[in-house]
Amino acid sequence: MKRDHSRPLGVPDVGPLGSDSRRQAPEFIGALVRRLFKALMSRAGEPPIEFALASGQVVYAPAARPVGRVVFDDVGVLWDVVRSPELAFGDAYSAGRVHVEGELTEVLYHLFRSSERAGAERAKRSLFGTTPQPRRNSLDGSRENIQHHYDLGNDFYALWLDERMVYTCAYYTDPAMSLEQAQVAKLEHVSRKLELRPGMEVVEAGCGWGALALHMARVHGVNVRAFNISSEQIAFAREQAERQGLAGQVEFIQDDYRNITGEYDAFVSVGMLEHVGVENYPTLGSVIARSLKTHGRALLHSVGRSRPQPPNAWLERRIFPGSYPPSLREMMAILEPYRFNVTDVENLRLHYAKTLLAWLERFEGKVDGIRARYGESFVRAWRLYLAGCSAAFRASSIQLYQLVFTHPDDNRVPMTRAHLYDGTAPLPWRGF
Amino acid sequence: MKRDHSRPLGVPDVGPLGSDSRRQAPEFIGALVRRLFKALMSRAGEPPIEFALASGQVVYAPAARPVGRVVFDDVGVLWDVVRSPELAFGDAYSAGRVHVEGELTEVLYHLFRSSERAGAERAKRSLFGTTPQPRRNSLDGSRENIQHHYDLGNDFYALWLDERMVYTCAYYTDPAMSLEQAQVAKLEHVSRKLELRPGMEVVEAGCGWGALALHMARVHGVNVRAFNISSEQIAFAREQAERQGLAGQVEFIQDDYRNITGEYDAFVSVGMLEHVGVENYPTLGSVIARSLKTHGRALLHSVGRSRPQPPNAWLERRIFPGSYPPSLREMMAILEPYRFNVTDVENLRLHYAKTLLAWLERFEGKVDGIRARYGESFVRAWRLYLAGCSAAFRASSIQLYQLVFTHPDDNRVPMTRAHLYDGTAPLPWRGF
Repeated sequence: MKRDHSRPLGVPDVGPLGSDSRRQAPEFIGALVRRLFKALMSRAGEPPIEFALASGQVVYAPAARPVGRVVFDDVGVLWDVVRSPELAFGDAYSAGRVHVEGELTEVLYHLFRSSERAGAERAKRSLFGTTPQPRRNSLDGSRENIQHHYDLGNDFYALWLDERMVYTCAYYTDPAMSLEQAQVAKLEHVSRKLELRPGMEVVEAGCGWGALALHMARVHGVNVRAFNISSEQIAFAREQAERQGLAGQVEFIQDDYRNITGEYDAFVSVGMLEHVGVENYPTLGSVIARSLKTHGRALLHSVGRSRPQPPNAWLERRIFPGSYPPSLREMMAILEPYRFNVTDVENLRLHYAKTLLAWLERFEGKVDGIRARYGESFVRAWRLYLAGCSAAFRASSIQLYQLVFTHPDDNRVPMTRAHLYDGTAPLPWRGF
Repeated sequence: MKRDHSRPLGVPDVGPLGSDSRRQAPEFIGALVRRLFKALMSRAGEPPIEFALASGQVVYAPAARPVGRVVFDDVGVLWDVVRSPELAFGDAYSAGRVHVEGELTEVLYHLFRSSERAGAERAKRSLFGTTPQPRRNSLDGSRENIQHHYDLGNDFYALWLDERMVYTCAYYTDPAMSLEQAQVAKLEHVSRKLELRPGMEVVEAGCGWGALALHMARVHGVNVRAFNISSEQIAFAREQAERQGLAGQVEFIQDDYRNITGEYDAFVSVGMLEHVGVENYPTLGSVIARSLKTHGRALLHSVGRSRPQPPNAWLERRIFPGSYPPSLREMMAILEPYRFNVTDVENLRLHYAKTLLAWLERFEGKVDGIRARYGESFVRAWRLYLAGCSAAFRASSIQLYQLVFTHPDDNRVPMTRAHLYDGTAPLPWRGF
């Protein structure tokens, strides 16, 4: 199923507003809407941002010096934002009916930090409406949800990802690292956590364009079966495996993680859990439990939350349909039924903030070509997505958890984590 | 309130059995009890252990080669174990009415591992009875619960703990380390996780005999306020501070963690959470939230579980009244309301298994003196406690979680954990 790329991501060309809202509203309605917007900003913790209408009328002025200014084309946009803050703001920004003056990531960072502080729950619910529900991730639903985002075209992602096409959080052991270096460092960090040894059998759930699978095979000499339901990614990954002479070691399988068979020395999933959906966590747990050998290592790498919360409505609707970043509490639903021992949790939140800034910079460097091909509303939507996610990580609105866990009968686990930080050192002593 | 040490830990001198059970039972009752015990072993996953009566009659023989043999004095003991497996087994063992042939820790390890596999929930509930409820940890309740165990006498603990009197999990970076070395390594590991710098203000909740507070002050030059409700421990700690010339840097306060005041660069609690009780987690969270500066580090070190479960009934009744080892899921109740960012979770389960074996070895080396002073049932209860906990850690029945978390507005966090493994290296770069 090929998408119509002239209107990608569900962003309507004409803007998100109904016909009513684009008529000129009588002044008493305008006053009411402005008052409701002020109430919304109060619930959002009074962010240090000025909000105004294109007419020049200031709708909300913060007590502190503003870090930036947000301008709405008209009262109709404001009304939509009052009714459904996240979704309408994102849609109106994409449609060019909301304009941000100042540094976009800074403005969003302060907006998120302020909302989080004020209690995101309160702030993000519409004053009148309800929070939209994320889509279900049935076998068919997952395929549709994943194709919506990941089958946008490999050539589009190649414009601004690193050369290996790694579309997950990088790992900057040094702030001066390039995106390329930081992505390789991430692949290696994950490999060390899995304690890979030549000849091991590894299964990867949600392999993207195949970079991790290929790294594990090439550098650590393991055999990998890598699952993904995105046809464009799988095609690219298979071509890479051929080109690198790794086709004998790495098998890319276009199928759902729920159809994984076999037993493995390592189970790894980087950036898939966000798309699994809490309702499927027990199933994911059972897949891992049946796939992992007693002395195998399992690693889940996922965007998460510090507490359970509904996902950002615009992001869930327009960018990642069906996605949900879980809290650690929620992730336990995967592990507890099988008594997995959590051996290590690391939070790479600020690494993702930096990764997204690197992507955004490259995206902007290619923006003319992207605009010519996909249109202005696409460009604005992706700018908001990349800047917004970076800001959200910085504001602790989202987290990046890397969990390692083991079989309850496995006592041959490394007793320290020193080997993660010195690749030349032998593995530390193991348990008894 | 001074305890009667001739009958410590609530272990009755005459054994735990009611008067009925000590009469000679008719044979049909004996047959019924043996059948019920077999059913219990089936629920416990058929452990590779032989169970018999002192008369020689085998009550349960495993299919596999047994790793040891457990002998009950009579059918009365067996009946008690059927009715309340954990509590009655521990009491009868302490009273010398249950005997273990073979290596005690091995037998218990296989018993726990088997029970865990079979689903600890099913196995540990009495066939007829209900799980005893742990005591509440009100301000008064906590004081009583803590005095029960920790005010048993400093001279008793000095017999078998390390010279610093550290009564929590050690950290063996090398298997050949002595207990002393491993405890110092633990104090240092915790200090590095807290990123201590000279002049910082640190608060410790539940400081035991003061070893961590004194280490942090001496080695890292910080000022510490250390809370503990055990009067004997506080007295010892104060004396140590005076002796080491650290009384100006470390203040030992005999008070409940709920009464902590002030703001600190680090909040640390090692081995107290087990005594806090889930019902008090929101309170503990609020204490940490009001105590921790924006750029402060918080560390919780606690025995835990891979999933929520009632505590071992004997241990909770006889050894650690009011104790409850939480799952990670349950620990989140401390952090979520305050949006703390979990930055690091490490599991030191097998380090505690090894620590307990070191304690047991030293305990056995001093056992004649301990028996002379406290009596045989005390010796047997403590042997079962030390061996049993070591076995439980090995069997993944319990875990040892070390959690580090930070304020949601704190982006000055170290971007890698390399500094934990190289004390001479500067701190890694911090976030933005």
